[in-house]
Amino acid sequence: MESIDIKQGVNINEVSQEMYKLVSELYPICRSITGDGLRKTLQLVQQHIPLELHEVPTGTQVFDWTVPKEWNIKDAYIKNAKGEKIVDFQKLNLHVVNYSIPIHEKVSLEELKKHLISIPDKPDWVPYRTSYYKESWGFCISHNQLLSLTDEEYEVCIDSSLEAGHLTYGEYYIKGRKSDEILISCHSCHPSLANDNLAGIALSTFLAKHLSQLDLEFSYRFIFIPGTIGSIVWLALNDSNVDKIKHGLVVTCVGDGGKSHYKKSRCGDAEIDKAVIHVLQRSGADYEIQEFSPYGYDERQYCSPGFNLPVGCFMRSPHGTYAEYHTSADNLDLVKPESMADSLEKFLSTLQILESNKKYINQNPKCEPQLGKRGLYSAIGGQTDTKKQEMAILWVLNYSDGNYSLLDIAEKSGFDFDLIKKTADTLLEFDLLKPS
Amino acid sequence: MESIDIKQGVNINEVSQEMYKLVSELYPICRSITGDGLRKTLQLVQQHIPLELHEVPTGTQVFDWTVPKEWNIKDAYIKNAKGEKIVDFQKLNLHVVNYSIPIHEKVSLEELKKHLISIPDKPDWVPYRTSYYKESWGFCISHNQLLSLTDEEYEVCIDSSLEAGHLTYGEYYIKGRKSDEILISCHSCHPSLANDNLAGIALSTFLAKHLSQLDLEFSYRFIFIPGTIGSIVWLALNDSNVDKIKHGLVVTCVGDGGKSHYKKSRCGDAEIDKAVIHVLQRSGADYEIQEFSPYGYDERQYCSPGFNLPVGCFMRSPHGTYAEYHTSADNLDLVKPESMADSLEKFLSTLQILESNKKYINQNPKCEPQLGKRGLYSAIGGQTDTKKQEMAILWVLNYSDGNYSLLDIAEKSGFDFDLIKKTADTLLEFDLLKPS
Amino acid sequence: MESIDIKQGVNINEVSQEMYKLVSELYPICRSITGDGLRKTLQLVQQHIPLELHEVPTGTQVFDWTVPKEWNIKDAYIKNAKGEKIVDFQKLNLHVVNYSIPIHEKVSLEELKKHLISIPDKPDWVPYRTSYYKESWGFCISHNQLLSLTDEEYEVCIDSSLEAGHLTYGEYYIKGRKSDEILISCHSCHPSLANDNLAGIALSTFLAKHLSQLDLEFSYRFIFIPGTIGSIVWLALNDSNVDKIKHGLVVTCVGDGGKSHYKKSRCGDAEIDKAVIHVLQRSGADYEIQEFSPYGYDERQYCSPGFNLPVGCFMRSPHGTYAEYHTSADNLDLVKPESMADSLEKFLSTLQILESNKKYINQNPKCEPQLGKRGLYSAIGGQTDTKKQEMAILWVLNYSDGNYSLLDIAEKSGFDFDLIKKTADTLLEFDLLKPS
Repeated sequence: MESIDIKQGVNINEVSQEMYKLVSELYPICRSITGDGLRKTLQLVQQHIPLELHEVPTGTQVFDWTVPKEWNIKDAYIKNAKGEKIVDFQKLNLHVVNYSIPIHEKVSLEELKKHLISIPDKPDWVPYRTSYYKESWGFCISHNQLLSLTDEEYEVCIDSSLEAGHLTYGEYYIKGRKSDEILISCHSCHPSLANDNLAGIALSTFLAKHLSQLDLEFSYRFIFIPGTIGSIVWLALNDSNVDKIKHGLVVTCVGDGGKSHYKKSRCGDAEIDKAVIHVLQRSGADYEIQEFSPYGYDERQYCSPGFNLPVGCFMRSPHGTYAEYHTSADNLDLVKPESMADSLEKFLSTLQILESNKKYINQNPKCEPQLGKRGLYSAIGGQTDTKKQEMAILWVLNYSDGNYSLLDIAEKSGFDFDLIKKTADTLLEFDLLKPS
Repeated sequence: MESIDIKQGVNINEVSQEMYKLVSELYPICRSITGDGLRKTLQLVQQHIPLELHEVPTGTQVFDWTVPKEWNIKDAYIKNAKGEKIVDFQKLNLHVVNYSIPIHEKVSLEELKKHLISIPDKPDWVPYRTSYYKESWGFCISHNQLLSLTDEEYEVCIDSSLEAGHLTYGEYYIKGRKSDEILISCHSCHPSLANDNLAGIALSTFLAKHLSQLDLEFSYRFIFIPGTIGSIVWLALNDSNVDKIKHGLVVTCVGDGGKSHYKKSRCGDAEIDKAVIHVLQRSGADYEIQEFSPYGYDERQYCSPGFNLPVGCFMRSPHGTYAEYHTSADNLDLVKPESMADSLEKFLSTLQILESNKKYINQNPKCEPQLGKRGLYSAIGGQTDTKKQEMAILWVLNYSDGNYSLLDIAEKSGFDFDLIKKTADTLLEFDLLKPS
Repeated sequence: MESIDIKQGVNINEVSQEMYKLVSELYPICRSITGDGLRKTLQLVQQHIPLELHEVPTGTQVFDWTVPKEWNIKDAYIKNAKGEKIVDFQKLNLHVVNYSIPIHEKVSLEELKKHLISIPDKPDWVPYRTSYYKESWGFCISHNQLLSLTDEEYEVCIDSSLEAGHLTYGEYYIKGRKSDEILISCHSCHPSLANDNLAGIALSTFLAKHLSQLDLEFSYRFIFIPGTIGSIVWLALNDSNVDKIKHGLVVTCVGDGGKSHYKKSRCGDAEIDKAVIHVLQRSGADYEIQEFSPYGYDERQYCSPGFNLPVGCFMRSPHGTYAEYHTSADNLDLVKPESMADSLEKFLSTLQILESNKKYINQNPKCEPQLGKRGLYSAIGGQTDTKKQEMAILWVLNYSDGNYSLLDIAEKSGFDFDLIKKTADTLLEFDLLKPS
């Protein structure tokens, strides 16, 4: 059976505009690891794909962790002595330390400063901070504003609630011809931060939407979860099924203009690792491969030793390495539609490899088959370079002994996976190969 | 038992003159993959070694291939309007596209040009072309001559025949002490091309002649075959015996002045690969090692996945990489006796390793034996460097635990195989080693 | 159980002075592979550690060797025609070729010169030479002195004896919690040569003295032996017990100012190899790693194929590579207390790794444990870099799956073994790890 062309019917330029539009719509929402901002985000995703929403009650034990109280916030501000709002949650939700407990009182400047966070190095930017597991309150403001505070007293108000409720996550399962799964995971808990990780949400959404239209070999599972606690919840609830996951990618920071980074799975030489590396090596653009380390995004959980799943992490600029990371400068200007398009194309190329990376058996293993009498030299569609095409045939035939996958043969020959795959499809048609 | 010195009795300078003489005698013959030119070539080789000639009938099925009709040619020419022979097969047999069907008629210049092949980049050279598996006719001429053609009509004549007959190949088997074989294979189907592959025929002939005088460990099988179809024929007819082949080399383009190239077997780390690489690394001359690829000479067939024989390919300038390749410039000037001599020496050094690359067991494995009391330090003949000799003894003793061959020990120690082998021979005499 | 801090209670500066003092005391003694000089040397070591002295009779068969006659010397000199002592053993014992037979006669200058050895390149230095296994006599003098000899006749006297007696060696066993042993071996047969190997004797002595005060996991065996014949004797007498040796180091030339060299065991990737390399890589100083070769010091015997023990060799400037090697310039000026201190520290760091390089099992293998709720981020004593400390926790947890030792995790993470070990100790306390 000929494998699918996974890029069929994709207008990358159009999709990149749609992805950017979704990022823009999601941007103003104040998300957190629980609460209505997260729910509303997943509901917006539901406008594109039939995401199933799960609600996990506060207090649920998930391995070593407990689902926390649900946090919601209506408003927050700081007013100066004249009663003027000088910091306004409605204008920028990063101003409130995420998961701040409610407060409404007048405080001295001295007291206030204990609850203010700024970035001296980037005096115009507002940082993003959280306090999920320690009950406290705080505001994030620009360092210039911090320096300008001179009143003796301020009114601070955080109209939030921290109560028993639920942790929400979204899941979309696309059934393929086999039950083996490819997992795509993105964290969806950051408030107004565009690259980290609205770009990841948008890419996952439109990738899922496209894949749902195809007849695929693998089943695909997309999960939209709050970072860390979300993957822990998901793994705890799906513990008995994770052995179906044959490949996986954590999607994050895929919208900025930086070069692509791929962090390998803990295995280090999983098929997903080889596939992404093949795509990046042949992309014509600069890239970087990182060894696995137990720090980063949700791959930390997927690659914990009790799971050790073959899950890598695809990023453009990695967390902590770009100035805008976790600040108000990670905004709609940092994300570029063309970067998102490029990231999406690399995902598609990678999935193309995973979908068709099979092993075959040469049906004429003793000496070469006589290619000329079969008219094989011109049988491979769309190839203008006859010599290259003939070489690809020889490579596929010689190494199709059941030990080498098409990706292995692509690596050995130095040819693109795509040419090797088309060659194998043709040789299958001519009965010179059969599946291993 | 002490192993043989495979270079004993060779006068390399003398042999290089004989090899060059054979190349010169073979040069004018119009060979092809079948026919009398091939037969005559093998008969000339029979003047030096008792080559057995095999005749395989047209139509014989050999794996996916069929032995083609036999091609013979008496004459061929192109005459201009004045009746002058402007292209004459008798002067250069490359002028006729090899395997051209017979023709004798007058054709317009326009029609003629459809059957003419030249090399615009090398306007004085005549290319070499074949049409084995598609019945057609053609002439190869220099590009300058092509440009000079102005007559309206030409008389073309190819006095050839393409009829049921035989494919001829030659085989020479030298029986050694054991039935394990070393295969030496050279293609013998190219017409007036000196480096590719009359040099290979000549080297194989005189290598075989020399080896036949020695008492060898391995049996040797030399085959002189038409390229591709010849190795396919041979493999098909000897399918049940190929497991005797423990090492093999395809010999080609061994006469030009370029540096040595070795293309590894498909296994990539076969003993033949290690042996040739050891020889080249220590030759003091530049060289290049190529990974296996399923394109090239008859190693394509020997290394097809159904056989996967440990057969590499030894060349000087590889096919397709030198300007004279497959042109009239691959003539007696391109081949140098000293290059052939150098190639032969490298073959002998390689076979020396294969003949004596054994594993031994140190008979005094606990601590070093006391070498001094045995007078061992000066026991190894012809060594002037006592320190080096002592070191070689220590290396051979320490690594002769049954896991390391002499070649492995040579590689580990950085010493020449030759010194390691002589050392092992001496230690055998002193009962400090026994065969593993 | 928390592993020991092997450096506890060591005042390196103080110990370096003591080591240098011992070197100075041992320096004047005329040692050899047998005899009273060797005995006296080991008796001086007994002032620091309870070394057990073994006496092995002349003629004892040890594998391929025989314990030689015992050599002792009272005096030796050369007198010129005027009766003046121009060469005096009492001033420098290197003047006599070690193991010289007794002689007392008048010889011509011509005859004398056959028994004189000098170093033309270093005309002021006296070489060190031996003649253990060939009965002869000789003197070593400076080349300048050799050139100055003009008298017709000289009186030579060597008041030595070569008679049945014993070979002496010293052994000190420190019992640890398990019977697995770490072997530390130093040769003790060189006369007035400070770096090679009085420095090794002194380091071994004070290392043993320190270790004897600790509660150690491994048992330690220190052996002080004459080179080559001593290790052969020891291995022959302890043949049935050598499988207890899990790691070992030959200690030599540890006092000069050169960079550290480590010569790997024959295995090449033994734990001792990895441990020393880890220490050297992180020492902040230049160093060099050498592959095993069957030449050098007593590792030649420990790593002979019948034993193949995991024993490497730690040196500063290796034998034969520094000008002073085996000359009178290897004196008390060549050895530096600070170099000996540095060598000792590297030994201690290496033993620290071997003592605590265990494998653990993460008790919460599915997803990360919640570190925050345990207050783990600040639980590791003495760490000022919280981020690094958190990372170390994540590395140890992620790779503690029973396959990776702490040293493997240190290498993977790029952190010092020390931090990884402290982290593991803390995680053990918190019941997040258990021994594998």
